[in-house]
Amino acid sequence: MKIALDAMGGDNAPGVNVEGALLAVAEYDDISVELIGDSDVLLKRLKAVKRYDEKRITVRHASEVVDMDEATSQALRKKKDSSIRVAVDMVKKGEAAAVVSAGHSGVAMATALTVLKKAPGVDRPAIAVLMPTVKGRFLLIDAGANVDCKPDNLLQFALMGSAYFKAVYGIEEPKVSLMSIGEEDTKGNELTKEVFKLLKTANINFTGNIEGKDVFTGLADVVVCDGFIGNTILKVSEGLAEAIMKMLKAEISGRFASKLGYLMMKPAIKGFKRRTDYDESGGAPLLGINGTCIICHGRSTSKAIKNALKVANQLATVNINKIISDEIAMSHKHMREQHIAEG
Amino acid sequence: MKIALDAMGGDNAPGVNVEGALLAVAEYDDISVELIGDSDVLLKRLKAVKRYDEKRITVRHASEVVDMDEATSQALRKKKDSSIRVAVDMVKKGEAAAVVSAGHSGVAMATALTVLKKAPGVDRPAIAVLMPTVKGRFLLIDAGANVDCKPDNLLQFALMGSAYFKAVYGIEEPKVSLMSIGEEDTKGNELTKEVFKLLKTANINFTGNIEGKDVFTGLADVVVCDGFIGNTILKVSEGLAEAIMKMLKAEISGRFASKLGYLMMKPAIKGFKRRTDYDESGGAPLLGINGTCIICHGRSTSKAIKNALKVANQLATVNINKIISDEIAMSHKHMREQHIAEG
Repeated sequence: MKIALDAMGGDNAPGVNVEGALLAVAEYDDISVELIGDSDVLLKRLKAVKRYDEKRITVRHASEVVDMDEATSQALRKKKDSSIRVAVDMVKKGEAAAVVSAGHSGVAMATALTVLKKAPGVDRPAIAVLMPTVKGRFLLIDAGANVDCKPDNLLQFALMGSAYFKAVYGIEEPKVSLMSIGEEDTKGNELTKEVFKLLKTANINFTGNIEGKDVFTGLADVVVCDGFIGNTILKVSEGLAEAIMKMLKAEISGRFASKLGYLMMKPAIKGFKRRTDYDESGGAPLLGINGTCIICHGRSTSKAIKNALKVANQLATVNINKIISDEIAMSHKHMREQHIAEG
Repeated sequence: MKIALDAMGGDNAPGVNVEGALLAVAEYDDISVELIGDSDVLLKRLKAVKRYDEKRITVRHASEVVDMDEATSQALRKKKDSSIRVAVDMVKKGEAAAVVSAGHSGVAMATALTVLKKAPGVDRPAIAVLMPTVKGRFLLIDAGANVDCKPDNLLQFALMGSAYFKAVYGIEEPKVSLMSIGEEDTKGNELTKEVFKLLKTANINFTGNIEGKDVFTGLADVVVCDGFIGNTILKVSEGLAEAIMKMLKAEISGRFASKLGYLMMKPAIKGFKRRTDYDESGGAPLLGINGTCIICHGRSTSKAIKNALKVANQLATVNINKIISDEIAMSHKHMREQHIAEG
């Protein structure tokens, strides 16, 4: 499938974006990429490459770029020819199957939402981020698209996350847990207590509340929360992992044996980094819109871009949006019937 | 000062509690401990100890124990002779300067609040937990006492946290930050945006929003949030630190050189553990009540109990409650004056 790549978005754009596209096309036969951005710059970069499949990497010009610190509303209103906007427009027109951006994530989300619109039955699209556990990985949803939520929103996040996990990882009944501050049914704040009741009646494998200390053990496949909590979990985890490595290094320096030990452990540390590496997960999909949109970290490397293109292709191939809309429609039906049955 | 220790509370009570008391009395000349609980059991344990200062470790009988999974309201209503209740009552009657408990934290907080009452000017007492950073430590407040908060509550958490940090660590103007999902002033949810405005006018060194990725770098001394967020941060950090160590070990096993390297790194890993060790921080104070109350982890070791007794003694000595009440009164005055000055 053809993926539209915002070639100008990200801290290391367009270098890593072009490289990521080249890597993806070289590795996956069924992916083609259209690079969106300053065509002079992009064509020049491609020309410097010795050999690549010219039919599967094309360039489309966009005259503007959204800066990383630009106000979302202003970028959305004024930059109609930005690389992210042109890329999203391609999906709208059916000229691309999906869009990938490592640019200003707020603008990317808002553009996708404005142009592609919400999927049928979805009130609030959400960001789903894959995080590592001791055993494998879990999906955190919402990771930051909606900072103030109603119970119904979290119900939909749960349905979307469950459908996504099933479609992408082939797990029949993903274990869906609600982020709370105690495992007991009655623990939580006003929001989560209401959500708990809704999730109990939903047509998913709801396994109850989960505490922060258990999310990394692999108890849940999908962890549901509002975007403020989700974004906090994401960033605290990022910060703590970095801090732990720094503290460990500080303890090592000055201890000769430890330094040597660290060097000997290098392969293990590399293996660990691979497991927790953001680059491997390939960005985060914005679920619940009419189209496939993958948001990448601003600090994305070419490998991260490559993996995001892979995930975008995968989601477009399975038609994730139809799966999600069907799931939500079915769940609404299920909850209505249950409601009638209960009297 | 005399500290009342709930000797029956905690996963390893009364063993580690008695040991912790013995350690504290041996190490600090100005601490004496009254062990509250089943006097037969406690006296028998003390009798087995060869030598200790009998004047500084005493026993008071309490006929009941609160179980770890008991409902808070029920324990509060029915168990008037529980070890935690008798301990808190001692503070109320002036027979002890502070209370320390590693038992059911909900019951300990509720008992302290019910018996000792809120301090003047405080609407919602809060739990303050000390967490490690790359450079030192920061105070997280509220770490779980209040799951649904109003902006005014967070303002008071900030004032209490700032006063506490100043009193205990001798830092003149602790840097107080608001937990949010972006550094910019306008980032956050409805609650934090309102709190931001209040903190800007408060008589503290407010340094703006802080993101999860920055809390462990040492940017802030005090990080303010509601109890749901705070408890989530606390538990996610606990879970992630454990998961990282497990993942690292899994990567090491099967690699001979790495295994050897790990062994050589042992002293560094021990040093790191000491920095992040819960046992070192000595429990968490419930701030904003008329009395000093330290809540410890259920899994507390004797070292954790010892350190909690030390912190309890320190807080009672500086009269933390008066400091907090004065700070809040002064801040109210300051904000009123500013309000008048502005129009």
